[in-house]
Amino acid sequence: MAVFKITVAYDGTDFNGWQRQPDGTSIQGVLEEALKALDGRDVVVTAAGRTDAGVHALAQVAAVALERTIAPDALVRAVNARLPESVRVLSAEAVDAQFHPRFDAKIKTYRYRIWNADVLSPFERRYAWHIIDRLDLQAIDDGAGRLVGTHDFAAFQGTGSDAATTVRTVTQAGLRTSRDARGAARSALLEFEISGDGFLRHMVRNVVGSLVDVGRGRVPPAWIADVLASRDRTKAGRTAPARGLFLVGVKYE
Amino acid sequence: MAVFKITVAYDGTDFNGWQRQPDGTSIQGVLEEALKALDGRDVVVTAAGRTDAGVHALAQVAAVALERTIAPDALVRAVNARLPESVRVLSAEAVDAQFHPRFDAKIKTYRYRIWNADVLSPFERRYAWHIIDRLDLQAIDDGAGRLVGTHDFAAFQGTGSDAATTVRTVTQAGLRTSRDARGAARSALLEFEISGDGFLRHMVRNVVGSLVDVGRGRVPPAWIADVLASRDRTKAGRTAPARGLFLVGVKYE
Repeated sequence: MAVFKITVAYDGTDFNGWQRQPDGTSIQGVLEEALKALDGRDVVVTAAGRTDAGVHALAQVAAVALERTIAPDALVRAVNARLPESVRVLSAEAVDAQFHPRFDAKIKTYRYRIWNADVLSPFERRYAWHIIDRLDLQAIDDGAGRLVGTHDFAAFQGTGSDAATTVRTVTQAGLRTSRDARGAARSALLEFEISGDGFLRHMVRNVVGSLVDVGRGRVPPAWIADVLASRDRTKAGRTAPARGLFLVGVKYE
Repeated sequence: MAVFKITVAYDGTDFNGWQRQPDGTSIQGVLEEALKALDGRDVVVTAAGRTDAGVHALAQVAAVALERTIAPDALVRAVNARLPESVRVLSAEAVDAQFHPRFDAKIKTYRYRIWNADVLSPFERRYAWHIIDRLDLQAIDDGAGRLVGTHDFAAFQGTGSDAATTVRTVTQAGLRTSRDARGAARSALLEFEISGDGFLRHMVRNVVGSLVDVGRGRVPPAWIADVLASRDRTKAGRTAPARGLFLVGVKYE
């Protein structure tokens, strides 16, 4: 048995999420079917993070043990030939049998895309949250900064979670747009990015929903710290739509 | 009657092209249906260029005459409320009754997107031509330069065209990527852009198919000039897939 670490990109629009389910099509399901055909036996694919229905990935990391001897490059080609075009294995490497994509992950980064203009681009309809009201980018960045550090994120956790602890460390949170394009003409596309050692269920989408309330001027940036301190889910903003969320990458030692 | 110039973006993936047809869904068709509902009568929408099935537009220009008195901003909102999300009116303005989006157009610009890497990004599967062989960007730019000027483009015209003349003026042609990102790490995404006073049926896609032959090293850049001079369609390369082509914009006086 050889264990492979695979990096996977997917357009989550037409999937019920990462996790294999009795009904509907999952990313894990199509990967396991493709790898099963390759290995001639049932296989289990484990991911760094189980993304929700409609959430996308630029570089999800997963692991699979195969009986068949195969070079990583050949594995990439063979699996992609059996996958729908909406799911692509970008790369593969043989790793130590002990490797676990979730437990060994050090930092995960998520990006949330918002289309902030009167009219939604047809090319963004599956990949961004459309918000017409002009958002205050400085206020969003200010609010996002309150999340950095080790905190109890219970207020931003979705229901139905089984996490043992709600304490997480956020290492970075803010708008890419306002940093990268300072001084340039403001684009309709806002990209919020957050990195940390782990994220609770719906945490990024609840954070984004709350930051949009800040960006609309309904609440001040400091309110984010108040919500965090409350550890009360009912205090936070709405859950932002899944379609704007992308798992950007996962870092290991 | 007031005539409106409207700028329209669309994801052409699920359409049979711009032109209304007996079977299938067209961009013109959904726009005319939406405007008919608004004006309470049949209307005709005329475009700057009739894009083929699967071709996209960032800013197609069209015109429509309406009996109803309506402010341009209200028109944008009312039409978008009746359109599928894959078609969006970006802006509208009242224009002179003599305005004709095709005859009055001075310069049109098309972009063709190529994903040049081993694995196609799932997010580009509807919006780019996937080419695995590493293309020679300098050679493509060199070949593209041979197209600039006033020439008889008959060799790059698709069949079934009724154009009165095959002479067109190309004002600019080349890769955006190699110009914009000189010195930076090469991206998988190549963007070819071409501007001119008009384009024959399938002309941009036939030009791109030929330039890809140049980029693969099958023929030298000077071959593009030979094809042009031959005025013989059988000399040019294959027609590049529709999904990579975008009408970027149309300029008027």
